[in-house]
This record gives sequence, structure tokens and C-alpha cells, in this order.
Amino acid sequence: MKGEVLLSPLLLPEFELKGKIVVVVDILRATSTICTALGNGASSVIPVSTVDEAKDYHDKGYLSCGERNGVKVPDLDLGNSPMEYHRDIVEDREVVLTTTNGTRCIHMSEGAEEILIGSFLNLSAISEYLSLAKKDFVIFCAGWKNRVNMEDSLFAGAIIHKMRKQLTDDNDSAQMVEALYEQSKTDLEASLQNASHVVRFRRLGVEGDVEYCMQTDLIPVLPVFEDGHIRIRQ
Amino acid sequence: MKGEVLLSPLLLPEFELKGKIVVVVDILRATSTICTALGNGASSVIPVSTVDEAKDYHDKGYLSCGERNGVKVPDLDLGNSPMEYHRDIVEDREVVLTTTNGTRCIHMSEGAEEILIGSFLNLSAISEYLSLAKKDFVIFCAGWKNRVNMEDSLFAGAIIHKMRKQLTDDNDSAQMVEALYEQSKTDLEASLQNASHVVRFRRLGVEGDVEYCMQTDLIPVLPVFEDGHIRIRQ
Repeated sequence: MKGEVLLSPLLLPEFELKGKIVVVVDILRATSTICTALGNGASSVIPVSTVDEAKDYHDKGYLSCGERNGVKVPDLDLGNSPMEYHRDIVEDREVVLTTTNGTRCIHMSEGAEEILIGSFLNLSAISEYLSLAKKDFVIFCAGWKNRVNMEDSLFAGAIIHKMRKQLTDDNDSAQMVEALYEQSKTDLEASLQNASHVVRFRRLGVEGDVEYCMQTDLIPVLPVFEDGHIRIRQ
Repeated sequence: MKGEVLLSPLLLPEFELKGKIVVVVDILRATSTICTALGNGASSVIPVSTVDEAKDYHDKGYLSCGERNGVKVPDLDLGNSPMEYHRDIVEDREVVLTTTNGTRCIHMSEGAEEILIGSFLNLSAISEYLSLAKKDFVIFCAGWKNRVNMEDSLFAGAIIHKMRKQLTDDNDSAQMVEALYEQSKTDLEASLQNASHVVRFRRLGVEGDVEYCMQTDLIPVLPVFEDGHIRIRQ
């Protein structure tokens, strides 16, 4: 089994996704939010690339949500803070979501065999599925506007670390993020103190989201993207 | 002072080089070879992007060298193993060099304030210069055909680590490679055992080059690219 890590969407041309499982990760916050919405009973999440698409869905009566540059889009129902996706709001609803980084990467992965949505909230659910599937996989880090970021890399490192014994091949990025994770695992949040995204969140006053999103295995769901919808695989 | 790390040429569009010092690094082997050639008395190294350019220089009587995919280009004088650049061959000569990754990155950096050539062989010479220059800098890792690689990342981590106290700002990649370096510094070569480039070198039978290129401060030169030539700054 080969496990690779893709550190930024800009590096995608160097990767072959066909026949592989892709795990899209955007810890702060798209993939943490998707896990939360599904964990709280949303029937599916529809990731869309543009604000206009999200607004169209909104006009059709969908619970339509999203952010640009970390800030909620006006006219949409919710922003991109997972804390907003309470059960009483999302249960049995189809949730439409557009974000600066993460939702775009889901669509960019469409040539893959399967597309999973990963976050610390469902870390073990992801690694257990990969372990049973026994297929080559790529952890696709969304980063921030094409820049490599710390929190997505740490998640990728955690997955590689859990999968290490089964891996017969990897790439250098996988070895790098695994070393990073091993150095940081005793206090993941501390290792994010100077990360660009966390500094940005501090400025936006949404630091609580970081603490929430770094919780491991809080929501043990396996979200899969198929036919335009992300749904929990039972 | 801001210190950033650029992990692959594909990520260049995300970086502003203007007004900054760029340190181009391609440990295996272009920048190690350039340091060796200059350390052994070459009057300058002329990096060229294509094999055809190198052949033109060859026809004009230059010592013209290069590789593609790790293998010496036929018809050129030397390949890209630093071990070939003996004093009795390169002293007082202008050396033309084309390589798969490194020489291209030198040309890609041309908007920068200054372009330095870095390798473990001249690690402290680079960090001491950056420390005195007090300018924002970017470590530009050549990688392997646009892929992120371990050895260039380790070098970047070593520089960031040496500069840490002077840095007021960085990027997440800088924090990541610093953590990687801190975890690996007691035995850099061991941490490269499974790196893709080292595996490739083993296959090509040029493993000795890895050992050579990982030596720290063997050749304390400061090579600067200016007007098409790399020369030692005295």
C-alpha cells in the first residue's frame, strides 16, 4: 500500500489520483465543519465551489452556508464555524457549503476511486477505513489559498503514522509530516500557536474553533463524496 | 526579519521575491556541485536551463556539464556528481551547468534582490550572511521534478533553526521544516534512508554522493548569482 501526502492544491499535477482513495483535509475549518454537520444529523453536505452557486441553493430553500477569507458570506444561512452547525439547525437537512479552500479541493479530487472527508474529529474512522480498504491513498491538504499549512500537515502526519506498518511505499512529504506529527503529538495545539491560520483566527476572534477542531475522534463518522453529495457511509 | 520556505517550484506563484534574498537549494546535487566547483577554484558557474544551451557552450570550448534524470548528458564534459569537479579540472575555468531541477530554480528566482546558492557544504556561510544582511529571505527548495523532497527541506530547516532568534515572521512551511530538522539533526543521513532521491541514487549506484553532500561546512563559500554567473562573494 502506498500512502502519499499532497501539501497544497498547486502540487496536484504531480499526483495520480486514479484508482486511489483521496482524503481531503481542511482542518480549519471546512472538513471539521462537514464532519460536525453530518455528525449532528444533516442528511448530506453539498460542497459547491462558488458563492453564486451557494446563493442559488439558498434561493431554492436549502440551508446554504459558506465563508470567504474566513468570514461568513452575507445572505447565506451559516458561516464556516463548526460551532454553528447545531443538531436543531442541521438535522435531516441537506446543507450546501462553499469555502475558500476545502470545498474546491473536493471537486479537484474527482478523478479518484473514492473521496473521503478527514479531520481530527474523525481521524480514527478514516485510518481504520484505509487500513481495511488496503488501497493506495493520498492525503490532500487544502492549505490556505494554495499555501502549505501546519494543521492540515499535522493531520496528514497523524494518518501516515497510524498507517506506517501497512505502507510499502510513500513520498517524501509523507515522511516529513510524519516526523512533524511525531514531534508535536503530545501537544498538537501548542505546535499550532504560531501557525499562520491560527494567528489569523486570533485576529478574527474565532480561536475557540481551533480548540474544537483539534479534538481527536469526537465525531467518528466516515463522510464520502459521491454524486455531488457528502454522506456518511454506514 | 521574515524567513520563508518554498517547498517546490510549483508553489512559486504564492511567493513575492522582490526585495528579498533567495537561497536556492538542490542538495542532490546541483547546489552541492556548484559549491564544490567554486571551492575548487572555478572562476564562475554559468547555470543554463537546457541541454542545447549547454551543448552550445561546449562547442565554444567551455567546460560544459550536466545531467537529466540523474544521468550525465552524453557529449558534455562532466555530469552532476560533485566528486567529478576536481581542482585540476575546474580551476580558473568557467563551468557551464544544466540540471533537472536546480539550475532552473536559479533562473526562476530572477526577480529577487539577491540570489545565493546553498547546500550543507556551505550552510554556515549562508546563515551568517543572512544574519548580517538582516533582509527578508526565502529558501527555495528545488525538489525533484516539482515534488517536495526531504534533503532540501532538511537544509531549509537547518537555516530556519539557525536564524530563529532573529525571525519576527515566517510561514508554516518554515515551522514545519524546522521541526523536521530538529527531529533529524543528530543523524541527518539516517533520516534520508527512505527519501525518494536517496532511493533513486542507490539504484543509480551513486550513493557516495549523498554522503558527500550531507557534510556540513566543508566548503565555506558564499556563491551569488549575478549577470548570468555564479561567483564567490569575497
